[in-house]
Amino acid sequence: MPSTQNSADGGRRARAFGLACGRLTPGPRNAITDVPGVRVAHVTLDDGAIQTGVTAILPHAGNLYRDKPVAAAEVLNGFGKSVGLMQVEELGALETPILLTNTLSVGTASTALVRHAIAANPDIGRTTATVNPLVMECNDGPLNDIQALAVTEAHAAAALVAALSGADGAEVPVGSVGAGRGMSCFGFKGGIGTASRRLKLDGKRHHLGVLVLANFGRPGELRLPDGRRVAPPAKDDAPEKGSVIVIAATDVPLDHRQLRRVIRRAGVGLARVGSFWGHGSGDIALGFTTANRIDHDERADLIPLRMLNEHRIDRLFEAMADATQEAVLDALAAATPVVGRDGATRPCLSDLLNSGSTP
Amino acid sequence: MPSTQNSADGGRRARAFGLACGRLTPGPRNAITDVPGVRVAHVTLDDGAIQTGVTAILPHAGNLYRDKPVAAAEVLNGFGKSVGLMQVEELGALETPILLTNTLSVGTASTALVRHAIAANPDIGRTTATVNPLVMECNDGPLNDIQALAVTEAHAAAALVAALSGADGAEVPVGSVGAGRGMSCFGFKGGIGTASRRLKLDGKRHHLGVLVLANFGRPGELRLPDGRRVAPPAKDDAPEKGSVIVIAATDVPLDHRQLRRVIRRAGVGLARVGSFWGHGSGDIALGFTTANRIDHDERADLIPLRMLNEHRIDRLFEAMADATQEAVLDALAAATPVVGRDGATRPCLSDLLNSGSTP
Amino acid sequence: MPSTQNSADGGRRARAFGLACGRLTPGPRNAITDVPGVRVAHVTLDDGAIQTGVTAILPHAGNLYRDKPVAAAEVLNGFGKSVGLMQVEELGALETPILLTNTLSVGTASTALVRHAIAANPDIGRTTATVNPLVMECNDGPLNDIQALAVTEAHAAAALVAALSGADGAEVPVGSVGAGRGMSCFGFKGGIGTASRRLKLDGKRHHLGVLVLANFGRPGELRLPDGRRVAPPAKDDAPEKGSVIVIAATDVPLDHRQLRRVIRRAGVGLARVGSFWGHGSGDIALGFTTANRIDHDERADLIPLRMLNEHRIDRLFEAMADATQEAVLDALAAATPVVGRDGATRPCLSDLLNSGSTP
Amino acid sequence: MPSTQNSADGGRRARAFGLACGRLTPGPRNAITDVPGVRVAHVTLDDGAIQTGVTAILPHAGNLYRDKPVAAAEVLNGFGKSVGLMQVEELGALETPILLTNTLSVGTASTALVRHAIAANPDIGRTTATVNPLVMECNDGPLNDIQALAVTEAHAAAALVAALSGADGAEVPVGSVGAGRGMSCFGFKGGIGTASRRLKLDGKRHHLGVLVLANFGRPGELRLPDGRRVAPPAKDDAPEKGSVIVIAATDVPLDHRQLRRVIRRAGVGLARVGSFWGHGSGDIALGFTTANRIDHDERADLIPLRMLNEHRIDRLFEAMADATQEAVLDALAAATPVVGRDGATRPCLSDLLNSGSTP
Repeated sequence: MPSTQNSADGGRRARAFGLACGRLTPGPRNAITDVPGVRVAHVTLDDGAIQTGVTAILPHAGNLYRDKPVAAAEVLNGFGKSVGLMQVEELGALETPILLTNTLSVGTASTALVRHAIAANPDIGRTTATVNPLVMECNDGPLNDIQALAVTEAHAAAALVAALSGADGAEVPVGSVGAGRGMSCFGFKGGIGTASRRLKLDGKRHHLGVLVLANFGRPGELRLPDGRRVAPPAKDDAPEKGSVIVIAATDVPLDHRQLRRVIRRAGVGLARVGSFWGHGSGDIALGFTTANRIDHDERADLIPLRMLNEHRIDRLFEAMADATQEAVLDALAAATPVVGRDGATRPCLSDLLNSGSTP
Repeated sequence: MPSTQNSADGGRRARAFGLACGRLTPGPRNAITDVPGVRVAHVTLDDGAIQTGVTAILPHAGNLYRDKPVAAAEVLNGFGKSVGLMQVEELGALETPILLTNTLSVGTASTALVRHAIAANPDIGRTTATVNPLVMECNDGPLNDIQALAVTEAHAAAALVAALSGADGAEVPVGSVGAGRGMSCFGFKGGIGTASRRLKLDGKRHHLGVLVLANFGRPGELRLPDGRRVAPPAKDDAPEKGSVIVIAATDVPLDHRQLRRVIRRAGVGLARVGSFWGHGSGDIALGFTTANRIDHDERADLIPLRMLNEHRIDRLFEAMADATQEAVLDALAAATPVVGRDGATRPCLSDLLNSGSTP
Repeated sequence: MPSTQNSADGGRRARAFGLACGRLTPGPRNAITDVPGVRVAHVTLDDGAIQTGVTAILPHAGNLYRDKPVAAAEVLNGFGKSVGLMQVEELGALETPILLTNTLSVGTASTALVRHAIAANPDIGRTTATVNPLVMECNDGPLNDIQALAVTEAHAAAALVAALSGADGAEVPVGSVGAGRGMSCFGFKGGIGTASRRLKLDGKRHHLGVLVLANFGRPGELRLPDGRRVAPPAKDDAPEKGSVIVIAATDVPLDHRQLRRVIRRAGVGLARVGSFWGHGSGDIALGFTTANRIDHDERADLIPLRMLNEHRIDRLFEAMADATQEAVLDALAAATPVVGRDGATRPCLSDLLNSGSTP
Repeated sequence: MPSTQNSADGGRRARAFGLACGRLTPGPRNAITDVPGVRVAHVTLDDGAIQTGVTAILPHAGNLYRDKPVAAAEVLNGFGKSVGLMQVEELGALETPILLTNTLSVGTASTALVRHAIAANPDIGRTTATVNPLVMECNDGPLNDIQALAVTEAHAAAALVAALSGADGAEVPVGSVGAGRGMSCFGFKGGIGTASRRLKLDGKRHHLGVLVLANFGRPGELRLPDGRRVAPPAKDDAPEKGSVIVIAATDVPLDHRQLRRVIRRAGVGLARVGSFWGHGSGDIALGFTTANRIDHDERADLIPLRMLNEHRIDRLFEAMADATQEAVLDALAAATPVVGRDGATRPCLSDLLNSGSTP
């Protein structure tokens, strides 16, 4: 039975377990929604062997096709099936919400985005161009009956509606929700996590926020910020067949090249938690800035934008590395138990941390 | 009413109009199917405003997921929505047939490939990895009611079945068929075209074959091989919103890097016919070699393959440029009239060439 | 004996032979110097077997290290030894003049740029970063005794001084001058060529200018704009071991991504003159815009810049393709005879065109 | 006064301080020379303000231009001035030794490699192609008078001779030697470090070896394998203007694409020691395999090679990440004190570790 979540109902956040990363200050919610305008909602499918879902991320609540945020993509390890990245890299902008879901439901989610865009923009494929749906994915096969292709266009549409109807700056439900429902991470229950960092530029407050769909990492290799290595009680020797999607949002004005440099540092955050970007893991980062937008109906030939003084970009690199690292830990900390296909489960990191049994 | 085509029923080929490119010799069919094992079939939708379709290309008739040809992708201009290219570039192999269709039907075709792969490989998403569907597209909006999303999973599945049931080395139907049904090219009716070139290496005969889905080019800028510029009777000043997909097949053993170098020369062929790889055109090449295959269930740690002595690669560059150029002309030459959405039509190049009215 | 050239003293230009490309209007000089601020000078070495030189291109006459134009590089075929491109791609800016020379003199020219930058910026490698010299090259071995490494730091420095002392908007000497001295192209004498195109944006005049170092192309494959194929009197069957460097300048404000898209269309111009970007040819484009500059000592955190409405970018694509094509023909048209190593020569296209003996 | 080192004379190795990384077994020397055929030598300049040098790495002791190892390059952060990488990526092979030196001496070292190649191959630039020198660099400005351009062609040639005259499988001098003489790392004295890992494939022993030129990292951010963070006694708040070069050698047969995937994991090793690939740091990896070679004079059209079963590539990813991490620590552990320009020094990590004063 699918449920829609756009208010907090996951488990406790990473910082509740003392899992903070780096020296920078988080935003008020320590979430991707600390970037003004960004909204997130989940549709979660929880029905026996069906343990999966959809997560929708809106860079802003307006018409994204008409008002396209500058965006960039970075492929750390391309064993993955995300769609829409090629055009993001060519044009440096996105034009639909971002949907996250399981690997085999990408086509369905993609079609849902197409219908969503046409509904709001009847000129698509008629008097203007077509539309580039943006869907990213991880393989939740170990817990979810992924062959069932259980995610429907209606589920994807419901996630989009829920995100749109959410309030600006709301909490982000994390853990075993939405696309994170059936995910695993370092042998533990994985899922959705988020974090943010505050940045002062020209005297004004800005944010960089990250949301991850965490489904990667070999059991036994998870590293906590203090250097502790944490293994699940029962080790599994299967090779990594997971993935991780890292979505970065910011209101710092960046051009496409700068944004791509920033989101590349997702790889640093993933390395710090114990990953070497395994062969079987589609490790992909996508970023956007709400501070530079492309008007689909622009009439001027030349348009102003702003970019960062590149001497300051280390601040964003650090924020990106720290927020990615913490967002993964947030997913692990918040994940609640899921019993999936053939009764499969994953232990929850929160239980281990609560029990104080880590070495 | 959809019709399935895997025998020749399009119009006349480019060479029937004297449109031959370059000095190399074509293969026996001057088609992508001159590469042994390659099969092509179309499902064409022709019903009032619905003028679209699906084209299936099989690198071989076996289980592609188990027996993956080395492959590469090259993005000349990334304003496009093809899916599956990221993994092809990371792993250097493809693992499903290639489907071509209209832009907004990519999600549906992608799901059809997923189901097709699961049916043949029940371990997908269970005990082995997921699957990377490969779908490429052009926007047939000017002739087809693309918003109708008329292509169904059943159409895509029918194209796959038709391709599988075809004979090895069959003719390739060209022109206004399959995904080419609603396409336009330089203001003329576009569609599917093909060409091949013979290559002798170490004393043995090899081939490089190309199939294009031609939907690009500004009216008035088409160039024939003799330098003539050909314009449609009535010019249209709309900016290019088309695209072109170039599929290259070969039985020359190449590694991924070499294959990518070869297919990059698709851009030369496109330039020769008059394109400058326009902003709005997704100009994408995908290539595979049947001579180097990856066994999904490989047990050895180290595996032999062969590659080309790079001193000989100019032969393949030339073949690729020539075959791409000729395949585009083939699509134009073979295209038969289509009356589409709101009665829209495109003139056929064959009429102009027959009438002898070119300048 | 080296000679310095920064006023016109080459042969006749391409248009004197009717070799005009495309429908756009050239700038007043039909040269890269139509972009305000750009300066070019050559040092030519003409001494028996030594037939080589250096060409200096200044994006502006100020301190480039302090005031860096936004720049981009595109590698069409990377069989080449240019230096400095990696940092241009990472930072999206250049910080030294561009030097062109023969392949084996790149190290020497690079050191000359380092000394030139230190002289003007004594903080380099002390209190600020180091400097990224930008040197591009072709192999003039068939005419020049390239093993002699005849280009000295003094020659490179002289080219820089000559460029700086030139007037804004001066003519560009073309043909067998500077780095072009010993170059060959389609079996003819090659060298330096240039062309430009005018662009009106938001009611104001802008330009895109191209300068090429043309040393590529198989004898017999040269194509003139009217479709004629032109071969040198005596064919040479050696594989292409040449290269071509395409430098693009503009005063249209572009960001790095847009600039890279524009200069990629150099490949179209090269294809039109008859190249398929041969294996042995390092085909490299570098572009800069004088309209977006990075202040090395910037103090603000956020900085304004302008970019092009991407709907207009086809105009620049067209200008780039046309100007590249014409600049190559300009190099061929202007090249004067050179007798080089072991008495080697190349016929001049101008002789063939003058004699009216082309088919 | 320059000194040549190709036997061990640096400080103690990382493992002498308990600094071991990962669970894999090192090769017999825990050095890049565990890959059979690989040789390394240094020329060190130690004369007052001149504290710099050259390091030569030979993939094998034969004629590299004639017998080219398959190679790949990966740019983690391209704020750097290495030369030769473009052709490595296009052709997937290297053809000269690799020289490491300071940033402003790249041109000189490059010319030395050109002369070295011509001496052994008099057909270069005559009857065969030119040559692609491979030089990589870091900025040793804080300790060395880098503006002096003190490295001469003779120094570079001496390093090449010393490497050639070394024994196969010799120890690699590490620490403040060769190009590492003036380098700094996390506020400590940096320099040259090395490590290797053993890999069993198809029952046979193979190795992956890494050598780093370590000159990166913000003071205070160094992480030891046990999670300890180590800061130098006096902190320096200057932004990172360093770099790190990671050279990987292996005798595992890989194709170019696989090799590139492997060396990309250098970024994981760097992240583990505390780097986020800072803006000002040119973080570049170059790898080669001695098990796949390209014969410059190959006569066959098709050539056999071997590649890795990609299901096993995680072993190499892990080896690459671990060996990179340990090689950086090795550089830090082995570095001996250097008094440089204006009396500048850096504390040695070994002193801190010996004194037991780390937190």
